[in-house]
Amino acid sequence: MMKIAVAKGDGIGPEIMDAVLTIFKANNVNLEYEVVEMGKWVFDKGHSNGMTPEAQQTIENLGILFKGPMETPKGKGVKSVNVTARKTWNTYANKRVFQTLHGDTVFSKAGILIDITIVRENIEDTYGGIEHMLTHDVALSRRFITRPGSMQVIKYAFEMARKKNAKRITCGHKSNIMKITDGLFVECFYEIAKDYPELKADDVIVDDLCMKLVTRPDLFDVVVLTNLQGDIVSDLCAGLVGGLGFAPSANIGDHICIFEAVHGTAPDIAGKNIANPTALLLSGLTMLRHLGFMENAATIENALLYTLEQGIHTGDFGDKTKKSVNTTEFADAVIANFGKMPKQGAKPTWPNKPVTPTVFKLEKNPLIVSKEMEEETIVGVDMFIESIEQPTEIAEKCLKHTLGIFKLVTISNRGTQVWPKGSVFTNLVNQYFCRFESIGDAPLSQTDIIELYKRLSADFKINSTELLNMWGDKKAYSLAQGQ
Amino acid sequence: MMKIAVAKGDGIGPEIMDAVLTIFKANNVNLEYEVVEMGKWVFDKGHSNGMTPEAQQTIENLGILFKGPMETPKGKGVKSVNVTARKTWNTYANKRVFQTLHGDTVFSKAGILIDITIVRENIEDTYGGIEHMLTHDVALSRRFITRPGSMQVIKYAFEMARKKNAKRITCGHKSNIMKITDGLFVECFYEIAKDYPELKADDVIVDDLCMKLVTRPDLFDVVVLTNLQGDIVSDLCAGLVGGLGFAPSANIGDHICIFEAVHGTAPDIAGKNIANPTALLLSGLTMLRHLGFMENAATIENALLYTLEQGIHTGDFGDKTKKSVNTTEFADAVIANFGKMPKQGAKPTWPNKPVTPTVFKLEKNPLIVSKEMEEETIVGVDMFIESIEQPTEIAEKCLKHTLGIFKLVTISNRGTQVWPKGSVFTNLVNQYFCRFESIGDAPLSQTDIIELYKRLSADFKINSTELLNMWGDKKAYSLAQGQ
Repeated sequence: MMKIAVAKGDGIGPEIMDAVLTIFKANNVNLEYEVVEMGKWVFDKGHSNGMTPEAQQTIENLGILFKGPMETPKGKGVKSVNVTARKTWNTYANKRVFQTLHGDTVFSKAGILIDITIVRENIEDTYGGIEHMLTHDVALSRRFITRPGSMQVIKYAFEMARKKNAKRITCGHKSNIMKITDGLFVECFYEIAKDYPELKADDVIVDDLCMKLVTRPDLFDVVVLTNLQGDIVSDLCAGLVGGLGFAPSANIGDHICIFEAVHGTAPDIAGKNIANPTALLLSGLTMLRHLGFMENAATIENALLYTLEQGIHTGDFGDKTKKSVNTTEFADAVIANFGKMPKQGAKPTWPNKPVTPTVFKLEKNPLIVSKEMEEETIVGVDMFIESIEQPTEIAEKCLKHTLGIFKLVTISNRGTQVWPKGSVFTNLVNQYFCRFESIGDAPLSQTDIIELYKRLSADFKINSTELLNMWGDKKAYSLAQGQ
Repeated sequence: MMKIAVAKGDGIGPEIMDAVLTIFKANNVNLEYEVVEMGKWVFDKGHSNGMTPEAQQTIENLGILFKGPMETPKGKGVKSVNVTARKTWNTYANKRVFQTLHGDTVFSKAGILIDITIVRENIEDTYGGIEHMLTHDVALSRRFITRPGSMQVIKYAFEMARKKNAKRITCGHKSNIMKITDGLFVECFYEIAKDYPELKADDVIVDDLCMKLVTRPDLFDVVVLTNLQGDIVSDLCAGLVGGLGFAPSANIGDHICIFEAVHGTAPDIAGKNIANPTALLLSGLTMLRHLGFMENAATIENALLYTLEQGIHTGDFGDKTKKSVNTTEFADAVIANFGKMPKQGAKPTWPNKPVTPTVFKLEKNPLIVSKEMEEETIVGVDMFIESIEQPTEIAEKCLKHTLGIFKLVTISNRGTQVWPKGSVFTNLVNQYFCRFESIGDAPLSQTDIIELYKRLSADFKINSTELLNMWGDKKAYSLAQGQ
């Protein structure tokens, strides 16, 4: 029998986890559970990452973690145990399924049925948290998007879409503004799409996507996005179906996967047996399908949908004129409805698939790199300098230091060119960006760059530098506005 | 009489602009209009920024531009004329008002009335477009948030909120992840809030905001955000009220302001006199209020709301069982309803305010800087290097070059620490971040940094560097995950 790790969580965690495992047991789900120690009380015992070393070892051995909501102690400078888990185990894809579950939402009332799956990249973007103050006035956050990281999550999204017989897969992005970073993500999307000709693959600008999601959410099926945009769109979709209490979450990695409820721990109602187990149950169903228990998942999901259609509800939602049930009663109602089919369309009962355990021991960190194809040349450097002078004064100083091998190409302030041409209306902050390129794109060495740095540092404080690369004959950097 | 510049735009632009100006004239709005040449046909005449030099001069002299939708020619490598206008004239605040206008939306049907004003920062964030490929696999976008830029837009939002007697002003952000950049924005928000004690000021994480906007949009009044988040939230809100055809837009600067419809030019229906002038009319009303024509604005807006409540509609929206009207008939209906009050609550008719022209000649670019308070010290440098080696091998090489003045503090990959501690499950891309700090936070010179750079460059290709600053005894940079 397959064994998974279970962390019950804080607050209402234990009671909703018990309800879900009761439902699994009643449906003869062929799983064994090893309960591990994670959560607020583990921080309180002195483990600064919110889990005991034994818990970590068990999870790494078993490869699957099913977890209730957890709290991170405030003001102790410790990181969220939820985020630590996702990062530590490199769960690169966050999958969330949003479907109409009950009639108590704005969209149910308007008769619009929702069934959207969001796949969000879970590691990159500004979530690396690499931030600096360049001057007293100017803060910088580095947003990284990588080709192998994008390929991992997009590949997962297409595989999942194929398995669920999706009709459409959409890439949400902002590549009209972030042409290189989000451009890379979209490029990876269409590269992978070629291997899935049966799926309709398209892309949409993220702001337009959000407008469409609140007018015609029924037009979407699977949507894949980078981290921050995916975060925002996920929660928007949770709102469409009634909030986090109806939104499951799965974090998928190559070695370890985490299935969890992402709502809060609701300490005010903890221990009262009145919490709503729906989100955790849905997360559990995502896990069952991930593990190949397709029949169990469909039976339980259809029973859940049928139960909700009957108007059976916990105290947090539904028709207030109808008496609410408690957590145990809700679970019992789902169990009693095994075999029933919801009116809104039953979930198909695919046969069980063989379980493929992905866990193996790692000797060292896996390296994910693409094959390099073009030759790489350094052709310049961007210098980010601190100054309160006017653009022409800065240009004059820069031009003294070009060493006969560089040319000063552009100076911009907050991304708007202010030299050689610009507008007098552009407001200046005390941080400029000066671009030096080699004359005729001649190849440069790091020594050339360092020499320029040294010369310029006599006149300016240089906060930051960035090499300008060419791959083959293609410039690997954006042009300045107006360049 | 005050004069403003008018650019009618492409496609349906001229006919909807004529409709709006007809309404203004019928209400005796005391304005004169100078029509300027901007748009697709101006690109076609060879002006690469989409406007003639005479148009630019007129707009800079008059200070106010009222514009229809414009098209940017595709595939010619030219920038959007809309974005160029906003950037050239430093319109740092984008204001958009979203209100329930007709019964044909999901939220109208659910009986939820919406009246939200979004103020979006319009210059900074990743919109500077400063992007680089660091390796073949790793793309970087720089996200800048500045103190003076944040102060400008937030100050505007509070002033506007005060003028409209707002009940609440909310800052949307992601400072739980982008602690320094969005942290700075939130800090500015609460700093300015102190001067407006009559306004309820609060903040909300942007993903939570989006969830709430699709469940309880009526809870919000004025919301201020950084550029990308504001872009996404604006379009979400446009969706709530029926799309871009019902969403006005104003771009506010210290010297020049632009009022425009942000929907498309709809070339397929251009010249047929059937387009919907509502968004442009609403943008015009925002302009009238900005200029102090409070009575005109209220009369016209109440007439518009009344007209829409009567079910009068152009072909793009409304009750399909009721015959639609054309553009001219729609404008005439609004004019015929001057003096009528909408059932959903009439807009208050404040007395006109004296118009304060803000236009003056600029001799040089305005500098916006804060007063520096603490002493500034360089205490280290982050080196972003290219490598496919394991973390311990990289550390070994770095440690050879510390020159007795630096210590190697952390190595991370995509923001996750991999040295001195880390998890074997962390997947590595070919780009590392190595942090060097001075021993005991001793002050460093740029020469020290350059010397380290030179030494390291013998072993690595260094894509990027970033100084580590302290202001007083406060570190002006984020710690690495796990540091």
